[in-house]
Amino acid sequence: MNKYSIILGNLGNTCDRFCKGYKSNPSSEEMLDMAVKKIPHIEGIELVGTWDIRPDNVREMKKRFADYGVACSSIIPDTFTDPDYAKGSITSINPAIRQKALDYLRQMSEVSLEVNCGLLNLWLGQDGYDYLLTSDYDQERRWLLEATQTLAKEFPTLKFALEYKPKEPRNFSYHARMADTILAAKETQCSNVGVTIDTGHSFVAGENVAEAVVMAKRAGNLLYHMHFNDNHGSWDDDMIVGTVHSVVYIELLYWLRKTGYKGWLSMDQYPYREDAVDAISESILWVKKFETIVDEYYPEIDALVKLNDAIETSRFLRKLIR
Amino acid sequence: MNKYSIILGNLGNTCDRFCKGYKSNPSSEEMLDMAVKKIPHIEGIELVGTWDIRPDNVREMKKRFADYGVACSSIIPDTFTDPDYAKGSITSINPAIRQKALDYLRQMSEVSLEVNCGLLNLWLGQDGYDYLLTSDYDQERRWLLEATQTLAKEFPTLKFALEYKPKEPRNFSYHARMADTILAAKETQCSNVGVTIDTGHSFVAGENVAEAVVMAKRAGNLLYHMHFNDNHGSWDDDMIVGTVHSVVYIELLYWLRKTGYKGWLSMDQYPYREDAVDAISESILWVKKFETIVDEYYPEIDALVKLNDAIETSRFLRKLIR
Amino acid sequence: MNKYSIILGNLGNTCDRFCKGYKSNPSSEEMLDMAVKKIPHIEGIELVGTWDIRPDNVREMKKRFADYGVACSSIIPDTFTDPDYAKGSITSINPAIRQKALDYLRQMSEVSLEVNCGLLNLWLGQDGYDYLLTSDYDQERRWLLEATQTLAKEFPTLKFALEYKPKEPRNFSYHARMADTILAAKETQCSNVGVTIDTGHSFVAGENVAEAVVMAKRAGNLLYHMHFNDNHGSWDDDMIVGTVHSVVYIELLYWLRKTGYKGWLSMDQYPYREDAVDAISESILWVKKFETIVDEYYPEIDALVKLNDAIETSRFLRKLIR
Amino acid sequence: MNKYSIILGNLGNTCDRFCKGYKSNPSSEEMLDMAVKKIPHIEGIELVGTWDIRPDNVREMKKRFADYGVACSSIIPDTFTDPDYAKGSITSINPAIRQKALDYLRQMSEVSLEVNCGLLNLWLGQDGYDYLLTSDYDQERRWLLEATQTLAKEFPTLKFALEYKPKEPRNFSYHARMADTILAAKETQCSNVGVTIDTGHSFVAGENVAEAVVMAKRAGNLLYHMHFNDNHGSWDDDMIVGTVHSVVYIELLYWLRKTGYKGWLSMDQYPYREDAVDAISESILWVKKFETIVDEYYPEIDALVKLNDAIETSRFLRKLIR
Repeated sequence: MNKYSIILGNLGNTCDRFCKGYKSNPSSEEMLDMAVKKIPHIEGIELVGTWDIRPDNVREMKKRFADYGVACSSIIPDTFTDPDYAKGSITSINPAIRQKALDYLRQMSEVSLEVNCGLLNLWLGQDGYDYLLTSDYDQERRWLLEATQTLAKEFPTLKFALEYKPKEPRNFSYHARMADTILAAKETQCSNVGVTIDTGHSFVAGENVAEAVVMAKRAGNLLYHMHFNDNHGSWDDDMIVGTVHSVVYIELLYWLRKTGYKGWLSMDQYPYREDAVDAISESILWVKKFETIVDEYYPEIDALVKLNDAIETSRFLRKLIR
Repeated sequence: MNKYSIILGNLGNTCDRFCKGYKSNPSSEEMLDMAVKKIPHIEGIELVGTWDIRPDNVREMKKRFADYGVACSSIIPDTFTDPDYAKGSITSINPAIRQKALDYLRQMSEVSLEVNCGLLNLWLGQDGYDYLLTSDYDQERRWLLEATQTLAKEFPTLKFALEYKPKEPRNFSYHARMADTILAAKETQCSNVGVTIDTGHSFVAGENVAEAVVMAKRAGNLLYHMHFNDNHGSWDDDMIVGTVHSVVYIELLYWLRKTGYKGWLSMDQYPYREDAVDAISESILWVKKFETIVDEYYPEIDALVKLNDAIETSRFLRKLIR
Repeated sequence: MNKYSIILGNLGNTCDRFCKGYKSNPSSEEMLDMAVKKIPHIEGIELVGTWDIRPDNVREMKKRFADYGVACSSIIPDTFTDPDYAKGSITSINPAIRQKALDYLRQMSEVSLEVNCGLLNLWLGQDGYDYLLTSDYDQERRWLLEATQTLAKEFPTLKFALEYKPKEPRNFSYHARMADTILAAKETQCSNVGVTIDTGHSFVAGENVAEAVVMAKRAGNLLYHMHFNDNHGSWDDDMIVGTVHSVVYIELLYWLRKTGYKGWLSMDQYPYREDAVDAISESILWVKKFETIVDEYYPEIDALVKLNDAIETSRFLRKLIR
Repeated sequence: MNKYSIILGNLGNTCDRFCKGYKSNPSSEEMLDMAVKKIPHIEGIELVGTWDIRPDNVREMKKRFADYGVACSSIIPDTFTDPDYAKGSITSINPAIRQKALDYLRQMSEVSLEVNCGLLNLWLGQDGYDYLLTSDYDQERRWLLEATQTLAKEFPTLKFALEYKPKEPRNFSYHARMADTILAAKETQCSNVGVTIDTGHSFVAGENVAEAVVMAKRAGNLLYHMHFNDNHGSWDDDMIVGTVHSVVYIELLYWLRKTGYKGWLSMDQYPYREDAVDAISESILWVKKFETIVDEYYPEIDALVKLNDAIETSRFLRKLIR
């Protein structure tokens, strides 16, 4: 039985670089209420730092979570909206910015502890580069390592999950794919640093996401967290799960079960033009459906991955369609 | 009710630039026998010129087709295996090669008439270019136009279907996507020149294949022929239909029906490492399944495409999965 | 001698869906002053409708342009920031929205006439779709056609240049690549509807941009306008020209000259994190450099494109590097 | 001063899955003679196992190399042309095939020792998978590890360089990108297992190749070997260096020097339709040109990568163009 969660902010305003707002923007409290009351199967809520949770509202949020009976599945520190981090947060060439970012991550770690959330999801979206011949990759990766290590050592009871994505907002991200993020995690030599898979990021990365799960397992159980969404393959479209792909999710859920993944299945969409509650509910119902298929056919799938025969796999998949 | 067909040569040897042969190579006659006896639902067989059919065996092949009670759904002239065409067939800068190619296409047109096959599928795989600043696109497109026009006028009772593909074997093909191939077809001003969609080529082209069907319809019923296969999105992997994608085929079959497509649904795979009869049979069974879904839910799908609501579409798609 | 231009708004604020503002936002008047005084070689300025020019400021802007001695090279109506157009402007399924969009385009056409700008650049960024099985492509393309036609007929002295882009902000755009946009232009049967190439959009589209120029030429001189920028190939990164590619620009400028292109070379970047004046000036200096190369070596390049020999082309290109 | 090399077989026949031979096929001895006499700057030759070198001709080849005064820069065991390896060599689910592959790799290791070639380039092209839900990634990666480890331990004086490539001939390769191949190398815990970069494979992988060099350095000097070629970004077109990209090679050569890379710069092309000697010579002259630029401007480039300013980098790059 998997545990389902959503990212709270996905219920809010959406924008892109052309349109500043496709929707109205409810407060975190309103979104929390909507989420708990309307979205099926969820037991956890993932918060974005600063937007949803800060030192000044952490107690109140903790109480709300307790009252609703949901867990805070993860906190995502916001190192991506502040223009100070435009050219990097903990990898900025400006030491004052690096310090500011590290201090902010410390603050968010404290907040996590206070709200009983054991996992910080570090999506370091601004840490990367845009132009060739403008960055000292070696130096910047050392800063990346040092800050991650510092944080992991200072907060040994928290888990730090590095979320990778090949690009956007930077043209190249330092945490770009599963394997390089495993390398980054292992380089810290801290046993509380791991990886988050966002299915859409993985699709865009050209990976097979199920194989990424296996790589994280083999590297020492480094898969800490999961974000779900779908896309057309070339960009992080952040769509409803299942509206483009299906086989790839079945394989993913099979390998999550097979490798003993115990973390959250959290929805991370960006419903630009859709009703957010409905769009996220759809994703959960799709993942549930795929989970049910995997549970029902587990021995058969297990045999298929050992069989190495595309025909038999095709026959199996075909019978899943009505 | 759609008419199903396969490309005969898909049952034969497979190779790539590294391995000269993954399989043994049955004769055309043996493959024809296998196809007719073992592959479900087929009423037509597509032949590759020179390999399967030539002036010297056209009568015999015609008789075999009659005996088996199948139609010759299309002939694909082979302008891609002869190294004379390495830098183009009807667009070569060498006039002798252009002449040779045109004469060969005439010969194949004659053969088509003799075997009562009304459709030549022109996949001009070598007509394109590899390096920037090495080709006079304007001149070569004029040669492309002239030869296509000449052929279409000399054989007014035949249909010439231009099959597009963005690349391979050339780095850029002249017939690359639906819209440029429509332009090429219309430029001939001949009413017997149209387009072939290969689903995998369309995926790699970054098109939405259903939209390509609509574009061909709007351009004046220019969709003449369909090839089916699947791939992972970045290359012409020529896989079993349905093993990667599914929604896209449902939308495709809906629009084929809606636009009144009357041509063949022909399987075009390249089962490098699979049993060919089984792999191609799987594709047919998948396309049939998608066809059945479209037929069963036609009014509902018709309402959905007018509704413009991703949530409702997601709900519909979800119920198709067991 | 080419005519250089820039898009005024490129000097202003930049944002993305994560960060609402990487920069401060000067007024149109301030940007105009900066552009004219600091950016080399420019003779024209391209304005975004509503932001830079509206009925209420058209006279004043006209005077400023006259005072500075620059031309208004094009006006880009803004159909992409208003959330009313979230699911399409002239292709919305809501007739009131379609009417609003058409009326707005009429207004911008009037403004163009008043400011002596002969060209409307129609980048219909919201006209497309996101999800499969949610749109009636045939109907929406008919609306697209009707509105374009209506506008072109009502303003016969204006040129309407359709700017294509495969995706963003929608997952699929109706004007996606050169060939489909030619089809859309020709379908209007109006001789004042043509196409804008944005080099970066063309790179992402998988086209070879020089070949796109030739296609527009062959379709009847349909290339009306040019936007320049660079990217890493998979997304509209809107970078400084020349920082990723170079050969492709040389080929492009050769074919622009060869096909007799007489329009503007306008810079269209999005310098998220760079000094905007410097970044855009760099692009102009790069395009100038490529133009100079083409002018200096025109006969040699002309011979190379006829020669069809990658070795000779490589030798030529090699000597252009210091 | 870098050491230049070529892959001998690149001078021979070329084919693809459509055309069995674009050229005639000289013998290894003839190609060696051509290479040494006609290709500039080379000090090494890379051989493909079985094709060019085997137990039966190793002495003779050794003598030829000595007579010509060139080194054998690497041997590439051929695990990709034998259909026995169609579904994997050392990762086949068939233990007899795994044994055959391992024995063959041992034989090639012996041959390497005999010919004084210290480096085996393991491009395990068939080790991967095509279809989802057909492979036990965990088990197959264990076999991959075991065989690599066995080999590395049995031949401690040889270096084993794992060459990565995202796909082709399989739809997914196990050694796909730099980071996963570092993981595979480190997992062996053998200090003689490292990585080969093929520039074209890296482009297709969506990596920035210079960053890949830095990753290998940081992982413990794991870059053992370099293959050079160019492509259009979406496929392993194996073209002449410099005919598409240039900036990326300058950055690459800068980082090779900066990280103290001491291995070979070996050309690996596939000149389907070009004169092979000329095409490969062009690549060498391009790489030399980029090397010269890096040497001449080293301090300036060094400052730029620390500066983090796209404008200054653009200015620098612009002055490299004549």
